[in-house]
Amino acid sequence: VSVVVLYNGPGDAPAEIDAWRGYLKACDPGIDFRVWPDTGPLAEIDYCLAWMSKPGDLARYPNLKAIFWLGAGVDHLLKDRELPRHVPIVRLVDPGLTAGMTEYVLQHVLRYHLRQPEFDAFQRQGLWRKLDIPLAKDRRVGLMGLGVLGRDAAAKLVDLGFAVAAWSASPKTMADVACFHGDEQLMAFLGRTEILVCLLPLTPATAGIINARTLAALPRGACVINAARGGHVVDADLVAALDRGHIAHATLDVFTEEPLPVEHAFWRHPQITLTPHVASQTIAETASQVVIEGLKAVRAGRLPANVVDLQKGY
Amino acid sequence: VSVVVLYNGPGDAPAEIDAWRGYLKACDPGIDFRVWPDTGPLAEIDYCLAWMSKPGDLARYPNLKAIFWLGAGVDHLLKDRELPRHVPIVRLVDPGLTAGMTEYVLQHVLRYHLRQPEFDAFQRQGLWRKLDIPLAKDRRVGLMGLGVLGRDAAAKLVDLGFAVAAWSASPKTMADVACFHGDEQLMAFLGRTEILVCLLPLTPATAGIINARTLAALPRGACVINAARGGHVVDADLVAALDRGHIAHATLDVFTEEPLPVEHAFWRHPQITLTPHVASQTIAETASQVVIEGLKAVRAGRLPANVVDLQKGY
Repeated sequence: VSVVVLYNGPGDAPAEIDAWRGYLKACDPGIDFRVWPDTGPLAEIDYCLAWMSKPGDLARYPNLKAIFWLGAGVDHLLKDRELPRHVPIVRLVDPGLTAGMTEYVLQHVLRYHLRQPEFDAFQRQGLWRKLDIPLAKDRRVGLMGLGVLGRDAAAKLVDLGFAVAAWSASPKTMADVACFHGDEQLMAFLGRTEILVCLLPLTPATAGIINARTLAALPRGACVINAARGGHVVDADLVAALDRGHIAHATLDVFTEEPLPVEHAFWRHPQITLTPHVASQTIAETASQVVIEGLKAVRAGRLPANVVDLQKGY
Repeated sequence: VSVVVLYNGPGDAPAEIDAWRGYLKACDPGIDFRVWPDTGPLAEIDYCLAWMSKPGDLARYPNLKAIFWLGAGVDHLLKDRELPRHVPIVRLVDPGLTAGMTEYVLQHVLRYHLRQPEFDAFQRQGLWRKLDIPLAKDRRVGLMGLGVLGRDAAAKLVDLGFAVAAWSASPKTMADVACFHGDEQLMAFLGRTEILVCLLPLTPATAGIINARTLAALPRGACVINAARGGHVVDADLVAALDRGHIAHATLDVFTEEPLPVEHAFWRHPQITLTPHVASQTIAETASQVVIEGLKAVRAGRLPANVVDLQKGY
């Protein structure tokens, strides 16, 4: 019998907790599924399915065999200096999460491509005015990050015919995508990008990567979509670039502080569309299947897929 | 030498006219390309590339061999009682036009699927509030019309994993799409549709098809996207369904009268997003290639593709 605890899960709604219990027990009736804070003695816990833990929380389980993080990005988790680093930490790479992110990216890329913010402004003014819209092949979309999420979004954008490029820290390749990498190719990538999408992991190397210098490297009128982490953006630099019209519009799903403080300038900026960190939500139906595969691997003595590289930070 | 006249083309911008001339002459330098009103004697004209002609206009060309209509829908053209019906009338089925329509449909389906209008309202209120978003497989999109445009949009929606159904006047089939047809299956189709997309041709049979009765057949909270013709919608019925909250939101690109009159209720309705008939614009680069193929066919004595069936009206 394995004892699994769901710690502060994103599905803190009772229905979502029941769904996790149901899916895990359907796969292995021997699983003893417990929900924090009703964990029983912490020494009994074998596996922790964790989300938004506070520093030190996970160190309190002395006999953990693995941690399954219920999100794609582990930057929050890795800030925990007491994190048990001797067990595999598995981040969530889940088809449901990936599809949700791709849907979000497609919605906002299409919105900018089809010039919807301008049409929205015309509607508010009662103005019937057509605008030219280029063919997708003439619209240059640039993705920062070419991991699982970046690749899926890139593939769907390529399917729609967009001129897609991607930038990543280390060299990567993908069919029909112009691939750039490293500091020395960042400016060239930005210079050809009309719609920038950030899907990078947040690491010391990528923190603040959307700043005055990189925003200035985008062509005038470019749009920015950030669905990765708030820490990728230097907020004041983005607002300044929007205010002087160099950046036409930005869509932001993530923020340095969440919930975004009520007094933050982003809330009421006319060129910003914001959503409350919903671009990609963990859904028990698909995420539980991924966790079950990971549990099987660990129990069979294998290393599960998507174990975090503590050195790289993702 | 064939004499081709561009009549009131949608590309009435000089650059667009030059593009048409350039593409046609690159294909056949023998083409004598003229632009209305500088047509010379009308008896010299062999082919008319027409757009938004007025009744009687096309009857004035006595020696026409074919009419190439530079749009997908010919309802406007067929209202012309003096239309020369003895020559092939070819409607535009153009990859650029089709892709543009699919982009528009995807943008607005994704916007409703991802509940963006609700998040927009939260942003205006300074409210950080997450909402559940179902997996695409649990989101039921329904397309009215399964011609070239409907099939392309359906295929892309299927690629994204949506639960797609389609309704058409006559029986049709498509892989991974639940197909409904005819009056007797219309209510069943509507009853399972959360996001309705109209891409029908406008004919006497489809005029006013989005009305009080059909809107009431949609589940409460459904959204409507009309990118076909304004005549498909009974405007007052749509406004009433929005006002009582049965329909949550509508996106409209086409209107009974265009430009939409300034006093029309659609302009300022908070649940309506409107665009000025731009969902699918004719672009010389791709449309000219289709016209060139059609010209080749007619000159070789063959019937070109996409000749309008005057009986069916599309």
